[in-house]
Formats: sequence, C-alpha cells, structure tokens
Amino acid sequence: MTLYLIGLGLNDEKDISLKGLEAVKSCTKLYLENYTSILQCSKEQLEELYNKSITLANREWIENSSQQILNLAKENNVAILIVGDPFSATTHINYIVEAKKQNIQVEIIHNTSILNAVGITGLQLYKFGKTTSIPFTDDQAQLETPYNVIKENKKANLHTLILLDLKPEENRFMTINEAIKTLLKIEQKKKEKIVTENTKIIGTARLGSNNQTIRTGTVQKLKDIDFGKPPHCLILPAKLHFMEQDALELWE
Amino acid sequence: MTLYLIGLGLNDEKDISLKGLEAVKSCTKLYLENYTSILQCSKEQLEELYNKSITLANREWIENSSQQILNLAKENNVAILIVGDPFSATTHINYIVEAKKQNIQVEIIHNTSILNAVGITGLQLYKFGKTTSIPFTDDQAQLETPYNVIKENKKANLHTLILLDLKPEENRFMTINEAIKTLLKIEQKKKEKIVTENTKIIGTARLGSNNQTIRTGTVQKLKDIDFGKPPHCLILPAKLHFMEQDALELWE
Repeated sequence: MTLYLIGLGLNDEKDISLKGLEAVKSCTKLYLENYTSILQCSKEQLEELYNKSITLANREWIENSSQQILNLAKENNVAILIVGDPFSATTHINYIVEAKKQNIQVEIIHNTSILNAVGITGLQLYKFGKTTSIPFTDDQAQLETPYNVIKENKKANLHTLILLDLKPEENRFMTINEAIKTLLKIEQKKKEKIVTENTKIIGTARLGSNNQTIRTGTVQKLKDIDFGKPPHCLILPAKLHFMEQDALELWE
Repeated sequence: MTLYLIGLGLNDEKDISLKGLEAVKSCTKLYLENYTSILQCSKEQLEELYNKSITLANREWIENSSQQILNLAKENNVAILIVGDPFSATTHINYIVEAKKQNIQVEIIHNTSILNAVGITGLQLYKFGKTTSIPFTDDQAQLETPYNVIKENKKANLHTLILLDLKPEENRFMTINEAIKTLLKIEQKKKEKIVTENTKIIGTARLGSNNQTIRTGTVQKLKDIDFGKPPHCLILPAKLHFMEQDALELWE
C-alpha cells in the first residue's frame, strides 16, 4: 500500500496529471491540505471529478496527524492532495522521512507550482534568488526578513518572489496593496532605499489560472490597483535582460 | 484558434494534466521540443496516448520557425509540447510576446519542472539561489560561470542547482562525473576552495521519475559513482537547516 503526495497544480480540478488521477482513484482516503494555497475551484468540483469524498486538512492536523496517516497507509492507499507541487510547502518532506523510516511506500506525484508559473511574467526562472514571504503578523514593527531578502537578492542581481500570507479558514488573503504598505513601512524604518515609491515591481494574482492578472510598474502606480481574487504575489525584479524587458512590456 | 504551450512534466506520457490532454486532442498539429530535456518515455508512447502524430522540433527549428507556427495558429489549434514546464527553457517566452503582438491567442498549460522536483532531496525550495548550468564546450579553459554562481550563492547561504548539458540528437548527455571533473578543473585554476574533494554535494538522475537516483556525500565519494540514464543534475547545498539535514540522510 502507498502514501501518495499528489500535486494539484494551480488552477482547477483539471490540472491534476493523468498519473495523479489514477492514484486518486486507487485511494480509500483523500486529504486536501488547505492552508498553503488555494485553487480556483471548489472542493466539490474535485470530489465530482474524483467521484470520492475529500477530507480537509489544516496545518495543525497535517502537523499532528502524521502517524495516524502513516498507519492508515500501511493497509490502504492514502493520498494527501496539495495545491501546487507537493514540495511547495516545506512541511511535507517530513512525511517522506517518516514513511521511509517506517518502511511505508511513498510516491510523489509532482505538479506545477508558483515557482514555474512566475515564468509567464517574462522573467527568467534561473535568475530568481531566495523566495520570501510576508506574513500576517501582530508584530509588524519587528518584521524585516522580506526586506532583507530583497536587498540580498538585489545585491546579487537576482529577482525576488514574495509570497503573501493566506488563512483560507478565516477567509483572509493578503493583497498586493497590503504587501506594498508593509514593505514601505519597513523602508521608512530602515531607510536603505530598497523599496521606494519609484521601485519597479510586478504584481500578480491567480498565476497559472486562465483569469490571472499581471501588472508591472512603480510602487506608486501599483499600490492602489485592485488585483481581484487571491492568491496574490509580488515580484521585485533585479536588473533586466533586454528579453525580460521586452516580455514585461506585455503587462504594462 | 489557439497556440498552446503544454508542459509534459518529467517522467512519462501520464504526467500531462487532464487540461493538457484535452488541449492536445483539440490540436491539428503537435510539435515536441526535444532539446532542453528528455522524458523517460518515447515519442511513440506519447503518440499512442494522444492518438496523433508528433513532429520533433530541435532548437534551430524552434528559434527559426516561430512565424510559421504562429501563422498556423491563426487558423488551427497548434501545440508545442515541452518537457517539464513551458518556462523551463527561456526561449519559449518569445512565442508569447510575438503571439500577443500579432493578436494570436496563446494558452500556457503548466507542469512540474526540475525546479519543483529537487524538493525530494529535502532541500527547501525557497533557499535555492540562481540556477546555473555546465555546457559541453570546446573552450573549457574559459568556463568559470558555474563556479562563480556557486560562490555567490554560497556567500548568500543559498543552494545551487546545476543543470547539465544535453544534446539528445547526438545522444550526448553530461554525467555527474563529467560535471564534477569540470568543476574541479576550474577549482585548480581559481583556487578559491569553492569545490574541493571534501565539498558536500548531491547528485541526482531522472528526478521526478519512479526510478530516480539521489546520492549525497563528498565530491571524493560521488565522483566515480554511476548515476545511470540521463538527465543528471548536481546540487551544491548551502549551510543546512536541521530538517534539511534529516531529510538528506535518506540519500546517504
């Protein structure tokens, strides 16, 4: 019997691979990890395609129930379904480590993730540096990490992808507008001119879906634009190659 | 009518998404870009699943025939099939730019790529820096880029993914062993102790397939190991988080 970690891609129920769907059909139990990102379709649309019911699994559950899932996988095919690729979120590698220790078969079925989908902006994927994120935090005064990552990446002439926090259970999704405000607040404090009103940025929403939004321009220009439904993410480009510049003009 | 850029994923014919397969079925002409990577299945296996014939397209053809393909896409659904994700290779963004200029509809159907699949090593995807590659070159004495990228990434405490060159038409695929030799040669010249016999590296082959090989250890230990069939790639890790260390032990 096998524990499957199956990537669902970024848009809707039809982004699963043929291999992923075959695995789903063979499972007695399906969990949908629903805290690291969201699809543009409902759980019910997945269930209808799979002709099976799906149990939602939040962060607490995924982190605390690994032994329960592994036990189940000793006797049954079980799948954890993950928006994007199974390695989009760092917590899932633990399942593989534990399963191997306990001699339980694990199979990873990959899919696309935001790390691929940002390619549509025209920026070269190979020129991205460390990925960072902006969390919902009560302690905004202490938040400096995303700013520092942008700074270090810029120094090395690398693009920065910034993932914005989301709490689907509370229906809270950080917008580009909030993210920009947070970065400008850090700028006010640190004054290193890493993110100013004149900094060129790229805002994206629902990347990988057929209703994605991509806009490029200065912070000044983008800070009040409504990007619509989540998830949003922000890119701080490094110096552009002329081919990147050409492609980016599509979104001006 | 639409020009589709369809990612095929990394392993075999069943890695295409349901959406990708639907698009393929709607096309009158299918091109398979066959120079940036290879699948673990044959063109014939793809053709059998699609029930359509596929035309192989090498680099020269893809780069020189864009207008011909775009013209075809004005009247027909046409697909360019790409191993991995459509943005794995940088040349494909040109198709999108040109198509938009000429008011031709383009649809991208994403899939996984090596940028996701390296997650199985246990290294955190967010901690990778710039991606580099080692080319087959007659001018090895001048080759320094991969060495310098590793150096810069290490300085910023970022992992480096090194893609190894391949020329499928000539049946030439660079091995981990050749890549290590090249890096050691650059080290001999530059003497900055970036890649020595004691440097810890991760060698991988056929990532994302069900017969992938992953081995970790020093250059000394890995330099003569046979990783089997292509494609191979090499990872130079930065300082490891303890969770990364734990996961990496799976491959020792």
